[in-house]
Amino acid sequence: MKLASLKHGRDGRLVVVSRDLSRCIAVPQIAATLQAALDDWANVVIHLRDISDALNAGQLADALPFDPADCAAPLPRAYQWVDGSAYLNHVELVRKARNAEMPPSFYTDPLMYQGGSDDLQGARDPITIRDEAWGTDLEAEVAVITDDVPIGTTAAEAHKHIRLLMLVNDVSLRGLIPNELAKGFGFVLSKPASAFSPVAVTPDELEGDWREGKLHLPLRTWINGEWFGEPNAGEEMTFSHADLIAHLATTRKLGAGSIVGSGTISNKDRKRGFCCIAEVRMIETIEQGKPATPFLKHGDTVKIDMWDQAGRSIFGSIEQTVQLVK
Amino acid sequence: MKLASLKHGRDGRLVVVSRDLSRCIAVPQIAATLQAALDDWANVVIHLRDISDALNAGQLADALPFDPADCAAPLPRAYQWVDGSAYLNHVELVRKARNAEMPPSFYTDPLMYQGGSDDLQGARDPITIRDEAWGTDLEAEVAVITDDVPIGTTAAEAHKHIRLLMLVNDVSLRGLIPNELAKGFGFVLSKPASAFSPVAVTPDELEGDWREGKLHLPLRTWINGEWFGEPNAGEEMTFSHADLIAHLATTRKLGAGSIVGSGTISNKDRKRGFCCIAEVRMIETIEQGKPATPFLKHGDTVKIDMWDQAGRSIFGSIEQTVQLVK
Repeated sequence: MKLASLKHGRDGRLVVVSRDLSRCIAVPQIAATLQAALDDWANVVIHLRDISDALNAGQLADALPFDPADCAAPLPRAYQWVDGSAYLNHVELVRKARNAEMPPSFYTDPLMYQGGSDDLQGARDPITIRDEAWGTDLEAEVAVITDDVPIGTTAAEAHKHIRLLMLVNDVSLRGLIPNELAKGFGFVLSKPASAFSPVAVTPDELEGDWREGKLHLPLRTWINGEWFGEPNAGEEMTFSHADLIAHLATTRKLGAGSIVGSGTISNKDRKRGFCCIAEVRMIETIEQGKPATPFLKHGDTVKIDMWDQAGRSIFGSIEQTVQLVK
Repeated sequence: MKLASLKHGRDGRLVVVSRDLSRCIAVPQIAATLQAALDDWANVVIHLRDISDALNAGQLADALPFDPADCAAPLPRAYQWVDGSAYLNHVELVRKARNAEMPPSFYTDPLMYQGGSDDLQGARDPITIRDEAWGTDLEAEVAVITDDVPIGTTAAEAHKHIRLLMLVNDVSLRGLIPNELAKGFGFVLSKPASAFSPVAVTPDELEGDWREGKLHLPLRTWINGEWFGEPNAGEEMTFSHADLIAHLATTRKLGAGSIVGSGTISNKDRKRGFCCIAEVRMIETIEQGKPATPFLKHGDTVKIDMWDQAGRSIFGSIEQTVQLVK
């Protein structure tokens, strides 16, 4: 099942989207918003699936064309957005570029940060920045949405709390990160609004590519229309999505609609390219002494997509243009 | 005007509370929840004020007794909870206890962290912990709730976006903080669910005690019924609530219902006591070589309150008991 939120008010209008992303239908009789559906998932999911099945069978004459440009984020605002760094190749490169050792605990204790969730962007919304010198970067990731997760939930139990998956562009202001992390309290200014794929999908849509809490498909990125990378999100992921949820649940429960991100997808095989500019700049620094690839500027475009085994977009693409505002 | 959310579903039932905290009345005809009111504040505030005026005048026969034990947090879940460290005496003591210098930038660049907002506790809810060895501490603070704050909002402009104030117990697990901060991405596990005062109040309720974006009254704390502190929240606050909002708005807008905390209230005058146990332990460490005051254990109680000039509770008290769950 695929779900989206068309732009409407603060929380969007929930629609069920056909598997091929061509048609959609609003379901106010079931739930007006995705958050409302997640708040009562056990009861509403069967009704949403009935609509989805009928839509995919071409039985709903009142379905409308689906346009990703009409989409808000699946959750236009959420009660929690917390992001991991599950791909340690990315973290190793960051450390290597500044000649720092990787702490051994990083291989057993997930690195995660709490993000702002009051303003989540739609797939075609601009990346709004106030200063190009802040060093704007994409971070292409996979995220899951949970239902209610009790305190103390284990990784084995966490799997069943993963209700939906989607893609994220966790926009990062690289120039602001060193000062902010030096202060010791994590990211605040350096992580402005993230953007999400047009649709969120239930795990069963991913068939065999979703296993052991990892999505085993390449995450594809382009910058200004040029191929930038396609590392596989299922490989070299040290902590699965279930591991990340269990880590959070160590000291607290998670409310329905919590969004948990994987961190930037990153593989050791450099031929696969990248999901963020910082990483290629680190490799340039390690190999050539200084970075060469520039960060994003006004008018630059970013595209993020994931295809199934047959080459069809699963979530629809994130396509954003950087917009400088004063 | 004073507002509260009685426990009801996930988001509570909005009530207007009388100034003396004795009576309340639900206002579903205006807004079912506090978030709904904040989403449309400019339009609903006049209607809420009419109810408040009538309630305070004793004109509402259908008002009910107000019991803080019935209260959820004013926002039982929020789209943003971000907390500052505006009282630098607290930060100085932390640093001094471990012989670290205070970076000069800390006096001009606010220290803030993004907190989890999917689970905000009511004033009489327990502090739920899974391990006493985690070192459970209170942090008594003042927080504001904003309406929509545009990107780039200055401190001078931020004042008008402060719609409500409340008290917070920003529960901290001191034993988990060193490891988590060493990882560099801020607090995740070490800041479980915060609790909030029974009511949130509009700035005009505070009269002359709310000025220049600071609340000039002592914040009173008790542990197991014994006086623990009463530092003044308006003194030695390096960054006002407006400064903190403006800092956040540097790179992003804030959604309506964003909660922005002050950080633990702390004054240099030690006779005024403390708003967190860590601080008295730091002073014990500096003076005696090691801490003596224990952190909170199962069954311990914490009370946090603020009185107006006439000694009346403004927000109602936070009164929590530590509950160990396995």
